[in-house]
Amino acid sequence: MQLIIGNKNYSSWSFRGWLMLVQNGIPFHENKLTLFSDNFYRTLEVYSPAAKVPVLIDGDVTVWDSLAICEYINEAYCQGRAWPQDKVERAKARAISCEMHSGFTALRNEMPMNCRARRHIELSEAAQHDVARIDQIWREQMLKYSDNGGWLFGEWSIADCMYAPVVLRFRTYGIEVSDLSKLYMDKVLQSAPVKAWLKDALQETDIVPEDEAGTDVV
Amino acid sequence: MQLIIGNKNYSSWSFRGWLMLVQNGIPFHENKLTLFSDNFYRTLEVYSPAAKVPVLIDGDVTVWDSLAICEYINEAYCQGRAWPQDKVERAKARAISCEMHSGFTALRNEMPMNCRARRHIELSEAAQHDVARIDQIWREQMLKYSDNGGWLFGEWSIADCMYAPVVLRFRTYGIEVSDLSKLYMDKVLQSAPVKAWLKDALQETDIVPEDEAGTDVV
Repeated sequence: MQLIIGNKNYSSWSFRGWLMLVQNGIPFHENKLTLFSDNFYRTLEVYSPAAKVPVLIDGDVTVWDSLAICEYINEAYCQGRAWPQDKVERAKARAISCEMHSGFTALRNEMPMNCRARRHIELSEAAQHDVARIDQIWREQMLKYSDNGGWLFGEWSIADCMYAPVVLRFRTYGIEVSDLSKLYMDKVLQSAPVKAWLKDALQETDIVPEDEAGTDVV
Repeated sequence: MQLIIGNKNYSSWSFRGWLMLVQNGIPFHENKLTLFSDNFYRTLEVYSPAAKVPVLIDGDVTVWDSLAICEYINEAYCQGRAWPQDKVERAKARAISCEMHSGFTALRNEMPMNCRARRHIELSEAAQHDVARIDQIWREQMLKYSDNGGWLFGEWSIADCMYAPVVLRFRTYGIEVSDLSKLYMDKVLQSAPVKAWLKDALQETDIVPEDEAGTDVV
């Protein structure tokens, strides 16, 4: 199995696909490409009709979207355990995962993932609204699960895949969240796969100018 | 079971959730709200933390995203038959469905769904790129399935839910596609659930100014 990803410092969608594999202990070859390089576009031309990372190649299966990768891996390798087993909770986990997958555009535009940086930014009203909604999601889940597993649905699930990059963004831009949401951020930041991703990200030196937002915090 | 939707003339995501239920013959109460009315916001405040339609309420399950609704209904009522049964095809169906769910922003912004209208618009380069990619998806699937079921993966699937509103947009704005993609558009437009949606949409008289794009075609 091969996973094509972009720079670990910047590529939040790559992080989601990668985390799904690493968290579930699934062996794979990591094919990291420098975002927007010639080699990046040449490779995606072959494997990704949407021209985006991540791309998973598993025998004759090719999947070029991170949520679709999660659903595929969950079915093919996790016996369905990467979603909550309770039907009501699973429906909710899918709803908040889809909310991340299709939404929070202002937040994603204004706060690009940039693991190594510590920045200050002025958020638009739309991005502040996104932050408040994410804080609400985390708080609500932690009310139920902070003492009971600590992930969004207690046990780790695909919903945590979807929100892990947001934790890194909030850290980079110093976003204030509720105490319960801070517990969730700590849970994510202390997990071994996330630490491993960050370790690699911090060794990268490439700069992608369009993902360098805000002013440095001294 | 209750499905909260917006105006049928305009609400493309509502159409997706609605189509999943109707196509699969699942009985439900349709709760149609006028988009952006006071009642719309009051109702969503109760049922949709993301403040968006559609919302599905099925006993103690609440799902507020159309792709999550499709996955929920597929598991709870369709025994998994709403995705292709073949593993490779299912992975592809999820990838193109997710591509629609998270992408094609230019197309969605510039060509709002507006069933009753026939309009001309000048598309940006990004929107033209989106159109070309969608034509590529439809053409590729029709090469395989136009004589073999005629839906994107032969039998009807959630992928068809995701792309049905795009067919209506292309019709509204007179978008030219390949002959194979035209076969797919005809398949969608001739299906009974889509005709039923359009019939209701054409009886609506509300105007949502921000979804009125382009100039009338005489």
